[in-house]
Amino acid sequence: MSNTPLRALALVCSLKPSPAPSSSQLLAEQVLEQPSGHGVEGTVVRVVDHNVLPGVEADMGEGDAWPGIREQILAADILVFATPTWMGHMSSVAQRVLERLDAELSVTDDEGRPHLTGKVAVVAVVGNEDGAHKIIADSFQALNDVGFSIPAQAGTYWNGEAMLPGDYNDLDETPEAVASTNATAASNAAHLARALRTQVYPAL
Amino acid sequence: MSNTPLRALALVCSLKPSPAPSSSQLLAEQVLEQPSGHGVEGTVVRVVDHNVLPGVEADMGEGDAWPGIREQILAADILVFATPTWMGHMSSVAQRVLERLDAELSVTDDEGRPHLTGKVAVVAVVGNEDGAHKIIADSFQALNDVGFSIPAQAGTYWNGEAMLPGDYNDLDETPEAVASTNATAASNAAHLARALRTQVYPAL
Amino acid sequence: MSNTPLRALALVCSLKPSPAPSSSQLLAEQVLEQPSGHGVEGTVVRVVDHNVLPGVEADMGEGDAWPGIREQILAADILVFATPTWMGHMSSVAQRVLERLDAELSVTDDEGRPHLTGKVAVVAVVGNEDGAHKIIADSFQALNDVGFSIPAQAGTYWNGEAMLPGDYNDLDETPEAVASTNATAASNAAHLARALRTQVYPAL
Amino acid sequence: MSNTPLRALALVCSLKPSPAPSSSQLLAEQVLEQPSGHGVEGTVVRVVDHNVLPGVEADMGEGDAWPGIREQILAADILVFATPTWMGHMSSVAQRVLERLDAELSVTDDEGRPHLTGKVAVVAVVGNEDGAHKIIADSFQALNDVGFSIPAQAGTYWNGEAMLPGDYNDLDETPEAVASTNATAASNAAHLARALRTQVYPAL
Repeated sequence: MSNTPLRALALVCSLKPSPAPSSSQLLAEQVLEQPSGHGVEGTVVRVVDHNVLPGVEADMGEGDAWPGIREQILAADILVFATPTWMGHMSSVAQRVLERLDAELSVTDDEGRPHLTGKVAVVAVVGNEDGAHKIIADSFQALNDVGFSIPAQAGTYWNGEAMLPGDYNDLDETPEAVASTNATAASNAAHLARALRTQVYPAL
Repeated sequence: MSNTPLRALALVCSLKPSPAPSSSQLLAEQVLEQPSGHGVEGTVVRVVDHNVLPGVEADMGEGDAWPGIREQILAADILVFATPTWMGHMSSVAQRVLERLDAELSVTDDEGRPHLTGKVAVVAVVGNEDGAHKIIADSFQALNDVGFSIPAQAGTYWNGEAMLPGDYNDLDETPEAVASTNATAASNAAHLARALRTQVYPAL
Repeated sequence: MSNTPLRALALVCSLKPSPAPSSSQLLAEQVLEQPSGHGVEGTVVRVVDHNVLPGVEADMGEGDAWPGIREQILAADILVFATPTWMGHMSSVAQRVLERLDAELSVTDDEGRPHLTGKVAVVAVVGNEDGAHKIIADSFQALNDVGFSIPAQAGTYWNGEAMLPGDYNDLDETPEAVASTNATAASNAAHLARALRTQVYPAL
Repeated sequence: MSNTPLRALALVCSLKPSPAPSSSQLLAEQVLEQPSGHGVEGTVVRVVDHNVLPGVEADMGEGDAWPGIREQILAADILVFATPTWMGHMSSVAQRVLERLDAELSVTDDEGRPHLTGKVAVVAVVGNEDGAHKIIADSFQALNDVGFSIPAQAGTYWNGEAMLPGDYNDLDETPEAVASTNATAASNAAHLARALRTQVYPAL
């Protein structure tokens, strides 16, 4: 298993359904492109395209699209959690993903480890307004709580100057500092995911 | 107008539709009961009972239940913003309400004031897990940004001891400190809402 | 008392002692200048110039400079709480001010109200890095908890584009949107402080 | 090097100097005790016992005690960042540690990696008031930003029921859920630190 390609899943938590352009999707795709040199196969899911019901169970019943997304999370080694900034916070779609992941805490393997343990998370945030550090903070805490490990420098983001309009996908080119942060996050995520494949967290 | 009763609207942001019991609804109702002695008429809306679409416009089109809720907000003097704690954060339903309120910033009165200016907000948070202070913080910031004033000591909350089960609506009785905080928040909100009716924020 | 000038105190929570230039002081001064048309007398204190000891009592004993700052807070109608952004958070100096204010909760007037009730707070945040909305959130929650009321749109801030250098006091001129936000926050603070002078929060 | 014992450093960010009892120190020590079975040698530093000057440089000059603490961080494989909750936030002492770590970003090894990369962080929070999830969030984000990796489920905490008095070091015994969380965090930290010793993050 350790020499099969790593799988990365980007959950893009834009409020806008496809095919509307999405700045958070653009940033997520840029992160996913990076690990290709690292043997990583990436998939993007725009969460709002699917009917993820409110709740904190793994399956909220009829019409709930979460179980399909959940399967993709369980199959992935790396989660790229991408969200826009609204009112300074992660989007309601992003928070819904975290709520649905809450159920995973009680699913453990034969040795008592939460079954997400061993997976790695990266967080990507865009906004025309300020909020990225706080959203990265809130995301790391929640994702780590259910079992994800966070590689070094695993947050990437962009926001414009205070109180001015402007979106990430309107920029003429990717700012060099953002491109560099994307590359570091992706590389560190691929490295950590591979390390945790061969060196599995011990049961207590 | 200044001697008509004040109107308070509680937006309960539980993830569970009615008629499921909701701890956040219980706390919101306790806050609403308080101001009755202050000439306040209260209404409760369980947001998840309505199909509030994702987006940041006042009306997201066909099937969007937000415009009806929005009308109730515009008619109210006091907003009681009530949410459970999930993963340490406000619920996705609560964040969606904030996203929808974002549109109000660009709606101004004849003198250029955002039309929510003059309204007052109280925040009520429950959780079996810790997170209330942070949720109160995030709520105050977002609600204030679109125009709500925050009366003194306007946050009320309950959460149990760390890592133990237990919900607010399972308690045998309302803890005295919570009841006292509810009463203060409600009294201060009614006072401030009435003061801002007669002493309107000036235009610049 | 209601026609005496309002007093505003800016607590500037830069990490740098005077006379080093401070972006947070510049923003605080801009807010203070605004209310001069509103009959407000302003004072600025650079907190780090004073030896504010760690602790949560009103007076931590020998060498503690807090009691002098505390007297100025008690004499003010409006607090302008100004802080830089470090690591996405308010400065350690700003957090220390909040810790010291914690003691005020237990100081009540003859009718049981915390003695800060009736005062008004504005928050001003600068950073070359993102974080302002979160710092405004954390500040509002803590200041409100000890009794400050928050006027409509009482947060002002500046930060540059993500991951680029640049400080507020290096800008050639104040961005129009920041100047406008400063003016709104100051005007609303003066209005609310004056309203709360004549219409005092009732005791329970 | 890979079979030398791991070194863990607990930075305890209580506001109270030694020898006053500290709940955050107690929790930190409990985490440190755990890894002893994992070949980890632990050291505790009560930060407030030392004169850590405000600033964002590695050495703020005369009288600054940070360089000595910094040396211990650089020598450690695992950082246990322990803080009390004040006003719902990490302590001013904890934030000061983060500010001082900001300087490390610009110190890179021969291959361009920030020199903290490869180290692992655990966060331990106590409070009689609510705030732990948010403090864990803020800590993870800042520590990760300067290079620390976060092992699975690396946050541990305790706080009492809302609005009631009571400190962690007044409890008759360690709650079972806290003890279990401590053990998981410590075990995962030791595992990840050892894995990152042999499998070093690649340079870009």
